Amino acid sequence: MARFTIGVVVGSVRKGSINQKLAEGLMKLGGPDAEFRQLKIDDLPMFNQDLEAEPPASVERFRNEIRAADGLLFVTPEYNRSVTPLLLNALSWGSRPYGHNSFAGKPGAIVGTSAGVIRTAAAQAHLRTLLGVLDIRLIVQPEAYVHFTDDLIGPDGAIADEKQHDFLKKKIGKFIDWVAVVAAARKAA
Amino acid sequence: MARFTIGVVVGSVRKGSINQKLAEGLMKLGGPDAEFRQLKIDDLPMFNQDLEAEPPASVERFRNEIRAADGLLFVTPEYNRSVTPLLLNALSWGSRPYGHNSFAGKPGAIVGTSAGVIRTAAAQAHLRTLLGVLDIRLIVQPEAYVHFTDDLIGPDGAIADEKQHDFLKKKIGKFIDWVAVVAAARKAA
Amino acid sequence: MARFTIGVVVGSVRKGSINQKLAEGLMKLGGPDAEFRQLKIDDLPMFNQDLEAEPPASVERFRNEIRAADGLLFVTPEYNRSVTPLLLNALSWGSRPYGHNSFAGKPGAIVGTSAGVIRTAAAQAHLRTLLGVLDIRLIVQPEAYVHFTDDLIGPDGAIADEKQHDFLKKKIGKFIDWVAVVAAARKAA
Amino acid sequence: MARFTIGVVVGSVRKGSINQKLAEGLMKLGGPDAEFRQLKIDDLPMFNQDLEAEPPASVERFRNEIRAADGLLFVTPEYNRSVTPLLLNALSWGSRPYGHNSFAGKPGAIVGTSAGVIRTAAAQAHLRTLLGVLDIRLIVQPEAYVHFTDDLIGPDGAIADEKQHDFLKKKIGKFIDWVAVVAAARKAA
Repeated sequence: MARFTIGVVVGSVRKGSINQKLAEGLMKLGGPDAEFRQLKIDDLPMFNQDLEAEPPASVERFRNEIRAADGLLFVTPEYNRSVTPLLLNALSWGSRPYGHNSFAGKPGAIVGTSAGVIRTAAAQAHLRTLLGVLDIRLIVQPEAYVHFTDDLIGPDGAIADEKQHDFLKKKIGKFIDWVAVVAAARKAA
Repeated sequence: MARFTIGVVVGSVRKGSINQKLAEGLMKLGGPDAEFRQLKIDDLPMFNQDLEAEPPASVERFRNEIRAADGLLFVTPEYNRSVTPLLLNALSWGSRPYGHNSFAGKPGAIVGTSAGVIRTAAAQAHLRTLLGVLDIRLIVQPEAYVHFTDDLIGPDGAIADEKQHDFLKKKIGKFIDWVAVVAAARKAA
Repeated sequence: MARFTIGVVVGSVRKGSINQKLAEGLMKLGGPDAEFRQLKIDDLPMFNQDLEAEPPASVERFRNEIRAADGLLFVTPEYNRSVTPLLLNALSWGSRPYGHNSFAGKPGAIVGTSAGVIRTAAAQAHLRTLLGVLDIRLIVQPEAYVHFTDDLIGPDGAIADEKQHDFLKKKIGKFIDWVAVVAAARKAA
Repeated sequence: MARFTIGVVVGSVRKGSINQKLAEGLMKLGGPDAEFRQLKIDDLPMFNQDLEAEPPASVERFRNEIRAADGLLFVTPEYNRSVTPLLLNALSWGSRPYGHNSFAGKPGAIVGTSAGVIRTAAAQAHLRTLLGVLDIRLIVQPEAYVHFTDDLIGPDGAIADEKQHDFLKKKIGKFIDWVAVVAAARKAA
């Protein structure tokens, strides 16, 4: 049994999403210590405080999945130099209701990919400050601004580009070490 | 007939939204030069590129309303130190499809209110950088971080607090002057 | 005589600065309408409110140069995903003393170059929100994230890469059009 | 002997700085587990890569002090909705030279005070994303946007306002717990 469960939140659900492809590649890099579970976010309604009294089942499921995770990996596209509405919406639901933030204290990390020149750098900058406010304990380094090309992912869904593979394996390894640090402290407390 | 049409985008639609109340108060401050029209955004689906080929009617309506406006006033709550998913979603739809950004070149301004201590300051900081990327020509000063209290809005929906009224009238006046500058240049071009 | 004076602020003064080289290339792209003047910022002391009562001559000179400019072009490196201390310091001095912001109402634009993968994207995101607060009227599009390579600048200091040259000429042209819009309105007021 | 040494970095050195006063008050709240040491930053020269080959003694001292600290507390004013040039400059020096970032892996927290309405909220938002990039492991909650009034600090330099005192004691307590988590992991590694 894996020591840690990592919830994976992907900011795009369009067909052929390159961040979804990257996420699937990343989930193969954890080794025996980590079990990755992608959290479904596209059935959450648009956040509206009026829905909070009786939230739909999708909201409860999402919150429970966050709470069950030992760490959270965010895989983000960049829209207009920020995160997607889909991702921001998931963050809103998970942080609420007031005083019951499901994200509190969880270790987190960010990766993003784009075929464009700045490689989600502005989206990640914004996401860093957002996740901190949600009381997620981020490990930012090494930053992962992944350039998407047709060769990045192989036919088996694994990261095929050797240089990217090695870098991202190191990134995920450092993140899992960080999950271990924070999870151990949570258990002790 | 008013010289300028100002589209108003409000980041919250919950019942009793304080930013909706503020927006209604602001729309009374324009004088004869400006006609305010609130743009409906809560019937836009969650943005997904797969919907772009055949977007729902609400999307077309929203884009047409943006294009018809001489200026855009954003009234924003703050969620988790950023804008609401609802507002970010409207920005995504308006900016697309690629190469057909409805916001391009429009003069814009931001106001926000909160009952909390930082008064939407972090949301506005993020929104400034977002709107610039959408090619909205912002006038930021004077910044309007409105503290919401029960006395802010009177029973007639107007801004009742005298100090806030005078400040916000000045803010809206400066924004309309700015709309005139940018609109004149657009006509000349 | 050129119609507009454009003050150029470069965020690095190290020997061989690639942003300085880019700035020199950009200053050749203005055509007859624009005269570029680089503003010296490396003789400004570190900002400290205690120095405000009797600021050194360099501060007065810098403020006068800003006031004399019809527009401001910022050429920024990226340090640790933000602007340089040198640039932030210049912004502080120019914005003060309280109530006497030299930047107020000036049209502005941003360009940046880096040899790294994200091409100053995070620095520019931060600078956008900063400059708005200083009451600079930004035109953000087209965004200019310039990849620096040895071929970018020719031996004569001009932008040698043809694709970059054409793109940046368009960027500068749009900026000068924008300066014209804002400057005309300022004269009329 | 205290278990942890906390380096305190204050973003202003003007006479009568309210953030300096707050920092002194905060340093009394640590209890027996923490020894606070303010790190001097106003003798660092303006960062310039040309100085890196032979940095002045002040730079070496600052870097050694960071390395010696078990945690870092940042007390920040807000200038133009961002941090001060003085603080950004200290971050630059500490993060360099390339590959030798003194901040790497240190637990950190942010507090700020202002007499104005938004209470350093925008400065802290920017600082959060900056510190993450420096590989500082931040604990953001509870956020501390301290309203400065004449009654905040007593004649003995302690935090006199009872409500603020209790809140900030809790903030510092949570930070020290966080320092313990990260420091234990560093020792184990």
